[in-house]
Amino acid sequence: MTIGNALDATAVLDGINAEVRPMLGEGRVARYIPALARVPIDQFGIALSGIGGDDAAAGDATTPFSIQSVSKLLGLTLALQAVGSALWERVGREPSGDPFNSLIQLEHEQGLPRNPFINAGAICVADQLVTSYGDPKQALLDLASRLCREPVAFDAEVARSERETGFRNAALVNFMKSFGRIRNDVDAVLDVYFHQCALVMNCRQMARAFGFLANEGVQPGSGEAIVTPRQARRINALMLTCGTYDAAGEFAFLIGLPCKSGVGGGIVAIAPRQLSLCVWSPGLDATGNSVAGRRALELFATRTGLSVF
Amino acid sequence: MTIGNALDATAVLDGINAEVRPMLGEGRVARYIPALARVPIDQFGIALSGIGGDDAAAGDATTPFSIQSVSKLLGLTLALQAVGSALWERVGREPSGDPFNSLIQLEHEQGLPRNPFINAGAICVADQLVTSYGDPKQALLDLASRLCREPVAFDAEVARSERETGFRNAALVNFMKSFGRIRNDVDAVLDVYFHQCALVMNCRQMARAFGFLANEGVQPGSGEAIVTPRQARRINALMLTCGTYDAAGEFAFLIGLPCKSGVGGGIVAIAPRQLSLCVWSPGLDATGNSVAGRRALELFATRTGLSVF
Amino acid sequence: MTIGNALDATAVLDGINAEVRPMLGEGRVARYIPALARVPIDQFGIALSGIGGDDAAAGDATTPFSIQSVSKLLGLTLALQAVGSALWERVGREPSGDPFNSLIQLEHEQGLPRNPFINAGAICVADQLVTSYGDPKQALLDLASRLCREPVAFDAEVARSERETGFRNAALVNFMKSFGRIRNDVDAVLDVYFHQCALVMNCRQMARAFGFLANEGVQPGSGEAIVTPRQARRINALMLTCGTYDAAGEFAFLIGLPCKSGVGGGIVAIAPRQLSLCVWSPGLDATGNSVAGRRALELFATRTGLSVF
Amino acid sequence: MTIGNALDATAVLDGINAEVRPMLGEGRVARYIPALARVPIDQFGIALSGIGGDDAAAGDATTPFSIQSVSKLLGLTLALQAVGSALWERVGREPSGDPFNSLIQLEHEQGLPRNPFINAGAICVADQLVTSYGDPKQALLDLASRLCREPVAFDAEVARSERETGFRNAALVNFMKSFGRIRNDVDAVLDVYFHQCALVMNCRQMARAFGFLANEGVQPGSGEAIVTPRQARRINALMLTCGTYDAAGEFAFLIGLPCKSGVGGGIVAIAPRQLSLCVWSPGLDATGNSVAGRRALELFATRTGLSVF
Repeated sequence: MTIGNALDATAVLDGINAEVRPMLGEGRVARYIPALARVPIDQFGIALSGIGGDDAAAGDATTPFSIQSVSKLLGLTLALQAVGSALWERVGREPSGDPFNSLIQLEHEQGLPRNPFINAGAICVADQLVTSYGDPKQALLDLASRLCREPVAFDAEVARSERETGFRNAALVNFMKSFGRIRNDVDAVLDVYFHQCALVMNCRQMARAFGFLANEGVQPGSGEAIVTPRQARRINALMLTCGTYDAAGEFAFLIGLPCKSGVGGGIVAIAPRQLSLCVWSPGLDATGNSVAGRRALELFATRTGLSVF
Repeated sequence: MTIGNALDATAVLDGINAEVRPMLGEGRVARYIPALARVPIDQFGIALSGIGGDDAAAGDATTPFSIQSVSKLLGLTLALQAVGSALWERVGREPSGDPFNSLIQLEHEQGLPRNPFINAGAICVADQLVTSYGDPKQALLDLASRLCREPVAFDAEVARSERETGFRNAALVNFMKSFGRIRNDVDAVLDVYFHQCALVMNCRQMARAFGFLANEGVQPGSGEAIVTPRQARRINALMLTCGTYDAAGEFAFLIGLPCKSGVGGGIVAIAPRQLSLCVWSPGLDATGNSVAGRRALELFATRTGLSVF
Repeated sequence: MTIGNALDATAVLDGINAEVRPMLGEGRVARYIPALARVPIDQFGIALSGIGGDDAAAGDATTPFSIQSVSKLLGLTLALQAVGSALWERVGREPSGDPFNSLIQLEHEQGLPRNPFINAGAICVADQLVTSYGDPKQALLDLASRLCREPVAFDAEVARSERETGFRNAALVNFMKSFGRIRNDVDAVLDVYFHQCALVMNCRQMARAFGFLANEGVQPGSGEAIVTPRQARRINALMLTCGTYDAAGEFAFLIGLPCKSGVGGGIVAIAPRQLSLCVWSPGLDATGNSVAGRRALELFATRTGLSVF
Repeated sequence: MTIGNALDATAVLDGINAEVRPMLGEGRVARYIPALARVPIDQFGIALSGIGGDDAAAGDATTPFSIQSVSKLLGLTLALQAVGSALWERVGREPSGDPFNSLIQLEHEQGLPRNPFINAGAICVADQLVTSYGDPKQALLDLASRLCREPVAFDAEVARSERETGFRNAALVNFMKSFGRIRNDVDAVLDVYFHQCALVMNCRQMARAFGFLANEGVQPGSGEAIVTPRQARRINALMLTCGTYDAAGEFAFLIGLPCKSGVGGGIVAIAPRQLSLCVWSPGLDATGNSVAGRRALELFATRTGLSVF
C-alpha cells in the first residue's frame, strides 16, 4: 500500500514506530481509575486503513486499550443516524476554550453544551441515544463491531470505575437536567455514557472502524453508508476544531488532520479521501493527549505531506 | 415591650403591617416546586423577640411557611456545635459575587464553597451533619423545636419535591465530591439538605428561635448557651455579608442588620444585644428575597434607628 | 480617654503595639512602585479618635505613609456631597467576589462596577469628581486637610509612578468607557485617581479624619456635617461588605468593624457611635491587607469587645 | 478557468451572485464608526484567484471596502516574516470560546492572547511589528500592494475613528501591558493596529492577495515566497479554527474552508492547492460575519465540492 507521494505505508509506520519508541515513558498514564492507572506506559501502536481497503500497522497495534473519549465519535454517529441534524438543536458546534469537563461555559450558556466532544456534549448525545435506541449500549457495541468487522466489548471494570468515580460527569448531567436539557433519567444516561467510555479496541480495529470518515461516509470494506457525505465532512470539521480537548488549535496547527483523542492514549486521525489512522500510547501530556501519539501524528503529517491545509 | 428609642414594639409592627399590606401581590412566589407555587401571595407576617424574653407580632405571624434557606442557620449552628471552627477548613467566609447556586466560582476555587449560605456551602455543612450526627434530620428537628419551644416538622411534600427537581443541587454535591470535598454518600447528604429546606415554621417561632444570635449565643427564654458569644457574632457577620443571596450589599446598605432570607419569603434579622425579628411574605424580587419582607425591614430600621452601623 | 468597658485607651493601644511589634517583618511591602517598595517593613502605628474628641495613639502613629485605597473613602465622600444618591446609578453596592482589579465581573456586568471600593468603582467615582468639581485634586486635598485639621499633600513621586505603571487601571477606565460608563477624558480621570491614591497621611490624622463616620456624619472636632447620618451608616455598611479587597468576609467575621484598607499598609476602622481608628504597618498579606494591622484590629476587637455584631 | 469538477468559475460565481442578491439587506452594517455605518447594505461582490494565476469575479467585486479584521492576516504574515515561530511565544494558537474582544480569558491566562485573530492577539502582533519594522504602517501597505499588485491605502477617516472610539482595544493593550506582554508604547501599538484595520481593498484584490495561502506560501502571480509552505499551512489551520470570531466551528462545519472575516463585511477563504476566494457584503449577523458572504461561501462549497474535509 502506498500513501502520500508513493511512500510505502508499512515503511512509514515502521519508521515512526522506531523514532517514537525512545520517548515512551514520557507523560503520565491516566490515574483517575485503577484499570487505566495500571496500564504499562511503554507501549505504542500505529495502524492505518486506506479507503481502498488496504491496511498497515506497526508497534503494539493489536494490543487492546480503553478507547475512552474516542468513543464519542461512535455515540455521535449513532445519534446522527437516529435524528440527523435535529441533534444540533441540543448540542453546539463551537470549540469551547475551556477544559473538557468544565461547568463554567455550560452555566454561561444555559446548559447547552458547546460541542459533542466535550463531556457535557457527549452526555447530551448519550441522552439522545437513550431516547432513540431501545438498548443503546448494545447499539454502541453493534456499531463498533460492524465498523471494525470484529467483536468489540465493554471493559466491565472500567465502566464500573467510571461510575464510582464519575462525580464530575454526574455534576454535568444533573446541571444540564436543571436547565431542562436532559430528557431521560440521569442514571440511565450516565450508564450509557460510562459504558461508551469503556469500549475496548486496538489500533488496527480503530483505523478500520473510522474509515467511513475518510470515505465520504461509506465504510471502505463493506460499502455500507454509515452517514451521508455531508455528515462525514462535518464530523471531520468537528474533530479538527474540537476533537483534542483544549489542544485542538495546536493539533490543527501542527498536524493539520481531523483527530479525536481519548485519555486511554488513543488518537484517531482522518486524511479525507485517503485514509484513517490510529495511534496509541498511554502516556498523556498536560492536555490529556497521548505524548507519543501526538508526536507520531506530527511525524506522519510531515513525512507524508498529508494535511487538509 | 419597648424598642429603639422607647417605641412600643406592637405599635411599630402594626404600623409596618398596615404600610406594607397594599404592596402584597408584588413580586412572584417561588415556582420551582408545586407546594411553594400554590402559596397565596397576599400574606405578610412580622414578629420580634427581645433578648429579655418579650415578644410582639403583627399580620400573619402564626401562619406556617416553608423556611427554606433560613434553615441554613440551623444547619450551621449544629455543625458549629459539633466541630467548632474546624468547620471553616471546609467552607469559606467570603461573599460570593455570584448567584446562590452558581457553579462557576466553585470551579475556580476547586470545589471549596465561598460561604455556608450559598447552596454549595450549605450542602457541605449538611455533609458535616451526616458525619457528626447519627440522625441529622432528627437533630435539625430537635434544635428547631428546642429553640422556638414548640414542635417543628418537615413538610414531606416539599422535601420530596426538592429531591425530584433538585438537579442543580445534585450537580453541586457531585461537583464538590469530584474535588474530594464531600465525605459521605451524595444521596445521604442531599436527603439531609432537602429536608432542612423543608422545615415549616411561622414568624413568631422564627423570631424566638434565633434570639440566641442577638444575645451572645444564649437563648433568651431558656438561658441555654447555643453557641459561644464569639460564634454568635461571627454568624451575624456572615449573615450581614452573605445572608441574602446576591443582595447582601444592598441589605447591609439599606437595612444595616444581619439578615438571612429564604425563597419561601421568610427573612430573619438580628439587632445585636436587642432583639431578633422575622418577616414573611411569599412574593419574591429578582434576587429571591421577599419584596414586602425587605420593605418591612427597611421601615423597621428607619423607624427604630436600629442598625449595626 | 476610656473605651469599651471603661478601659484606658492609651493602655489598650500600648498593649497592642507591644504585642504586634515582634511580628513586624511578616508579609511583603507593596512592590509595584519604587516609592512603596522602599518603605521599611518594621513599622507599626495605631491611633484612635473618640466621637467626644479625645485621641490616643501608640507606635509610629505620626509617621506619614501613602494611604492608597483608604483614599477611596475621601473620593466617595466628595462624590456623595456633590450628587447624593444619584451616584448609585453609576456604581453598585455589592461585594465583588473577585480581586480588586479584576475585569471579569466588569465584563459580565457591562462595565458597571460592583462597588466604589474596587478600582473600577473608584475610577468611576473619580470620573464623577471630574464632572462635579472644578479642581477635583484640590477638592480632595481640601477635604482631607479639613477633616484632620492639618495640611495634607500628594506624594508627587507616587502619583507619577502610579501613572507610569498603572496599565491595569488604564485598562479599567478604557473598558468602562467602551461601555459608555465614563463621561470625561480617560487621562483626566486617571490623573485624579492616581493623585488620590498618592495622598500622604499618618495614623493620628487618619483616625481623626474619619471620625464623622463614627458620629452619624458629623465631624467630632468641628461639628461640621460632612455627610448625612444615613449616608454615614451606608458608607460604614459598604466598608464592612467591600472595604478590604477579597477579605471583607474575613474581616467582618474576625473583627466585626467596618474597615477600609490600602496597599500602603493603612487600615481605617469605625466603631459606630464610639470611635474611629487607624492602624498602619507596611507588610501585606496575600489579600493586600496589612498583616500587623489586621492582627492589631483583631486584638482591639477582642480586648474592647467593640464589634457591630 | 475551471474549478471543482470542471465547473466554469465565472458561471459558478454568477450563479452565486444571482442567488444571494435577494437577501441583501439582511443583517446590519457595523455601526461603531460613521464611515462603516454609512456603507450601503445592498452590495455583494465575489472574486477568486486560482493558483495558476486565473481570476474570476461577479457582483461588486471592484468596489473598495474596509477590510478590517481580514487585515490581521497581513499583520500576522509580516510578523512571521520578521521573527518566524518565535512569535508563538507571545500569542497562542487555540480557539477562544469567547467573543473576539473579551478580556475575561485574557485575565485567566495572564494576558497571553489565545490566538492572533482575536483583537488581543492582533494587538500583540502589532506590538511585534513596531519592534521589528522601522515603519510598520508602510510595511503593511507595501505587503498588501505587492500581494495584490495594485496600490493599497489606509482610509484615514476610518483609522481616526477607530482611534477615537477604540476604548475596548485601548483596554486590551493596557491590560496586556500590565502583564508585561507589550514591549512598546501603547499608543504606538494602537496606531499600527488601527491603521491596519483601516486598509481598503476590493474583492478582486483580496482574492489575489491571499493566493500564497492556497499555494504553499508562494504568491501565484510573482512566484515570490511570502511564507514557508509549513507557515502557509499553519496560517490556514488558524483561519479554520479561529478566523471567524465566535463562529469558527460553524464555518468549519458548514463551509469546510479556512476563512478570515472582518466587520467591513469581507471574508477571505482558502481552498488549499486550488484557489483563494473573497466575498463581501456589508450586512453582518450577530457573530460579526457577513450574512450574504457566509451564504455565498456555503453555496460555493456545496456547488464545487471544495472542502478540506
